[in-house]
Amino acid sequence: MARAWHLKSRPVAMPGPENFELKELPDVPLAQGQFRVRNAWLSVDPYMRGRMSDVKSYVPPFAIDAPMQGGAVGTVIDSANGDFPVGAQVLHMAGWRDEAVVGPELMPQKLPEIGVPLHHWLGNLGLTGATAYFGLLKVAEAREGDVVFVSAAAGAVGSAVVQIARNKGMTVIGSAGGPEKCAWVRELGAAACIDYKAGPVLPQLAEAAKAHGKGGIDVYFDNVGGEHLDAACALARDFARFAMCGMIDVYNDGKPQEMRYLIRLVSARIRMQGFIFTDYLAHMGEFQADMGEWVRAGRMQSRETIHDGLESMPDAFLGLFRGANTGKMLVRL
Amino acid sequence: MARAWHLKSRPVAMPGPENFELKELPDVPLAQGQFRVRNAWLSVDPYMRGRMSDVKSYVPPFAIDAPMQGGAVGTVIDSANGDFPVGAQVLHMAGWRDEAVVGPELMPQKLPEIGVPLHHWLGNLGLTGATAYFGLLKVAEAREGDVVFVSAAAGAVGSAVVQIARNKGMTVIGSAGGPEKCAWVRELGAAACIDYKAGPVLPQLAEAAKAHGKGGIDVYFDNVGGEHLDAACALARDFARFAMCGMIDVYNDGKPQEMRYLIRLVSARIRMQGFIFTDYLAHMGEFQADMGEWVRAGRMQSRETIHDGLESMPDAFLGLFRGANTGKMLVRL
Repeated sequence: MARAWHLKSRPVAMPGPENFELKELPDVPLAQGQFRVRNAWLSVDPYMRGRMSDVKSYVPPFAIDAPMQGGAVGTVIDSANGDFPVGAQVLHMAGWRDEAVVGPELMPQKLPEIGVPLHHWLGNLGLTGATAYFGLLKVAEAREGDVVFVSAAAGAVGSAVVQIARNKGMTVIGSAGGPEKCAWVRELGAAACIDYKAGPVLPQLAEAAKAHGKGGIDVYFDNVGGEHLDAACALARDFARFAMCGMIDVYNDGKPQEMRYLIRLVSARIRMQGFIFTDYLAHMGEFQADMGEWVRAGRMQSRETIHDGLESMPDAFLGLFRGANTGKMLVRL
Repeated sequence: MARAWHLKSRPVAMPGPENFELKELPDVPLAQGQFRVRNAWLSVDPYMRGRMSDVKSYVPPFAIDAPMQGGAVGTVIDSANGDFPVGAQVLHMAGWRDEAVVGPELMPQKLPEIGVPLHHWLGNLGLTGATAYFGLLKVAEAREGDVVFVSAAAGAVGSAVVQIARNKGMTVIGSAGGPEKCAWVRELGAAACIDYKAGPVLPQLAEAAKAHGKGGIDVYFDNVGGEHLDAACALARDFARFAMCGMIDVYNDGKPQEMRYLIRLVSARIRMQGFIFTDYLAHMGEFQADMGEWVRAGRMQSRETIHDGLESMPDAFLGLFRGANTGKMLVRL
């Protein structure tokens, strides 16, 4: 019997295990155009927190007592859709469960056989990589020679941003929590990585920008908000561009962000632009060409933090907010 | 003997009279290309506060014990520049003084005779109007049908924004302090004007947006920062554009801004763009054509808050931060 994690109640601040419930799914026959997938990997992403709250956003909130959604890859085991025959490998949005009935509304994509591990389609080759690519190159319009600051640089999206920026000839300053993560970020090609757990961000960023960035930054890729965002405002050079991808620092605490340097938006003519990767689907071909080349050439590394078994999904998700992951957080079924 | 207000000391928070000193200027002969102007009107603007602090910005800070600068209009009384003969009326940047020696570095413009009062060149026809025009139409890319929120809507720039938006077929929600200012903003064509002194901004803006804006705003023209900016984030519709012109709420207090809704940058894909009107000088012709037509057609009203005499300049300036002005703050000599 297929099972799925349901949203039992809406978290008000930090989510906890009590907000989730693993329940059996009713056994339904396939309608025309649908197919059944046995999931092999489930994606675990910070943005899912947003859908647990009942607020207007770019995607509707998860319904209470209904299965949650998210990226997943797996194999078709039964099909009423000729484009997705039994045996095909598929990326789709019916995550948080072991077996899924998938129709067009879940945006399925049949995966080509290009000799990469299946779970990479949830990472650099999928949503994660596309988010990094579009945010850096389309939203922030980062160019060769730019000094790029990236927060959560050892995370899934952040580590992709570091490498895309390096591959495109930019200078990267990362931020991550702890010496081990920072070492990896430098290994990926960052000129410097500040450790936000070792002290306040602003003086560390100022020092790194002095050493590597002519004293300032041209681009900021924001995954966290709060103190990092404020420091980026403080050190932005004229006409700096900020790609606003997420604010994991403030998803859960419900406290206001204290911004001392937001006023530099005006004098430095900073542009802050929020985005969702789906806004840039028209550029998917460009992303796939670049990313495919980098993956083949070994110029795109990844790490994964893997939890095993459907039961571990809430744990894996909660770990994101403790910085428990290096690279992509995944559940293997 | 010509006199000018000098910066005596840098204000650390709210400036006071002790930061300014009125001193005589040395009597210097004109160099080739210079001319002497007897100023008739001095512009009094919030942005001047920025130049009183010793921070990196788009213009260098005022030097201590030197004459301050700002917009001014007057008449040429002596000239060593054939383009600016005696009797010509000139707009230039040597304000804060009664008589000025002007060279090209002070960006002089000879004013055409089009039958408008001289001080209008410091208002809708000058920097103030251009700032409103470029911010609304170029920075925020506001279009016919958009719902535009403007803070400090009874101020010089704000009242111009309200009217430009109305002239271009947009729906305007203003914010101003007190019923009298709000009444004027509505007179200028705003569908609603919230009184920020009467209560918190967010619930008032939500109500106005419900009545006039399909529940949200498409554009925000920010003159104040702080609570207004946060409310605009809360109520921004998808792909809203914010023109970041100034943050008078936070110029002086040195406290961080508390932002609860900055996170909506991501989900609503808000674009915040700081600007200075000089970034858009390439569009001056377009501005002058539109504004000239509106002024001739009576579709551009203005009010002035006028102080008399050079001695009153610091008082006029400090009044900006108490909201003492309706429309443009000016000193008449």
